[in-house]
Amino acid sequence: MNFLEERIQKDGIIKEGNVLKVDSFLNHQMDINLFNKMGEEFKNRFKDANINKILTIEASGIGIACIVAQHFNVPVVFAKKTKSINIDGEMYIAEVESFTHKCKNQVIVSKKFINENDNVLIIDDFLANGHALQGLLSIVNDAGATVGGIGIAIEKGFQSGGTIIRNLGYKLESLAIVDSMDHITGKINFREQ
Amino acid sequence: MNFLEERIQKDGIIKEGNVLKVDSFLNHQMDINLFNKMGEEFKNRFKDANINKILTIEASGIGIACIVAQHFNVPVVFAKKTKSINIDGEMYIAEVESFTHKCKNQVIVSKKFINENDNVLIIDDFLANGHALQGLLSIVNDAGATVGGIGIAIEKGFQSGGTIIRNLGYKLESLAIVDSMDHITGKINFREQ
Repeated sequence: MNFLEERIQKDGIIKEGNVLKVDSFLNHQMDINLFNKMGEEFKNRFKDANINKILTIEASGIGIACIVAQHFNVPVVFAKKTKSINIDGEMYIAEVESFTHKCKNQVIVSKKFINENDNVLIIDDFLANGHALQGLLSIVNDAGATVGGIGIAIEKGFQSGGTIIRNLGYKLESLAIVDSMDHITGKINFREQ
Repeated sequence: MNFLEERIQKDGIIKEGNVLKVDSFLNHQMDINLFNKMGEEFKNRFKDANINKILTIEASGIGIACIVAQHFNVPVVFAKKTKSINIDGEMYIAEVESFTHKCKNQVIVSKKFINENDNVLIIDDFLANGHALQGLLSIVNDAGATVGGIGIAIEKGFQSGGTIIRNLGYKLESLAIVDSMDHITGKINFREQ
C-alpha cells in the first residue's frame, strides 16, 4: 500500500451503500502534509507533461489543487458550480450531474482563465461516476486547451468514471483506486498499480 | 502599499456598486505564490497566538487557508455551506446571509473536527458585511474552542463587518482594507495600518 492507501485504510470510514468517508483528512478536515505528499507524487507521475495550469472544481478539490500547484509552480483555476453574480463576461459552461448530491449543477469557468495555450492538469479529490470530471474536460476542450493529465486522490474503481475516462485516451492517475470495500469488516481492497 | 494592496491596484477591477473583482489572482484563478506571501504575513501577525487549527468556509477561502496552514503547520477545516448527505453525526450549524448572493446559507462543521482544545485561526478571502465570519465565530464558540485570530485577505472597510468584529474584541487582521474605490478612475484608497 502507498501512503494514501494506508491513510484511507487507517482513517477512512466505510458506510453502507459503498460510501467511503475520508472527511477527517481529505474533504472536510484537510491534512496539508498529506496533500504535499500527494503533490510530490503527482509531480513525479506528470513530470514530463509541461503543465502550466491546474484546473479543479469547488469545493473539496481546491485545497488539494493549491498544494499540488506548488510542486508544479503554476496557478490554479477552480470551476464554480453555481452561477455567481460576481462572474461576468463570457464563461465556459458545462452541465454535470452529481452522484452524491442527486442534483444537476452547471460547472463554470471564466473564458479569461483558460485558453488554447494552456496545458492543463485537472485535479480532484474523488472520481466515481466521473460526471464532474466530464464537465471539466468539456470546458478544457471548449477552450481549445490541452489536457496534460488528470490527477485524482481516490478513485472508486467499482464505478464507471475511471474506465470511461481512460477509454477516451486521457492520462488519468489516481493515487488510490478502491476496487471494493466492506462496511462490516472495514476492509478495503485497493487495485494494484 | 504592501504586496497585496499593490496587486489589487494592478489587477483588481472595480465595477459599479462597489464591486471589486479579484478573480484573476484570488478567488477564481489563484496565484499560489501570492498566497504564500499572505501565509508569511499572517504567520508574522499571529506568531504568538499558538494556533493549532485553521477554519475557513467554502469555496474561495479554502485555497488561501491551505497555503496559509503550511506556515503554521496545522490542519485546515472548511465549513460547508449546504447540508451534504455525506456529513453525518452531529454538526455545528450557523445560519448566515450572503450579501453577494442575496441568499441564506447554513454554515456547517462536523463536531468531530473542532472542540474545546482548539485555538483556531479563521481565514477567509473577503470581509464585507461579515455574515459568513459571524457564522464561523458562532460555530467556534458553540464548540467551546478559542478564536486565536482572524486573518482576512481583503476587507471592504466601507462596510460594517470589520468594525463589528473588532468591537467584539477579536484580533482581526486584514492584509488590505479598501476604504473607498472609484469605478470610473480605477483608483482604490487603502486604509493606513
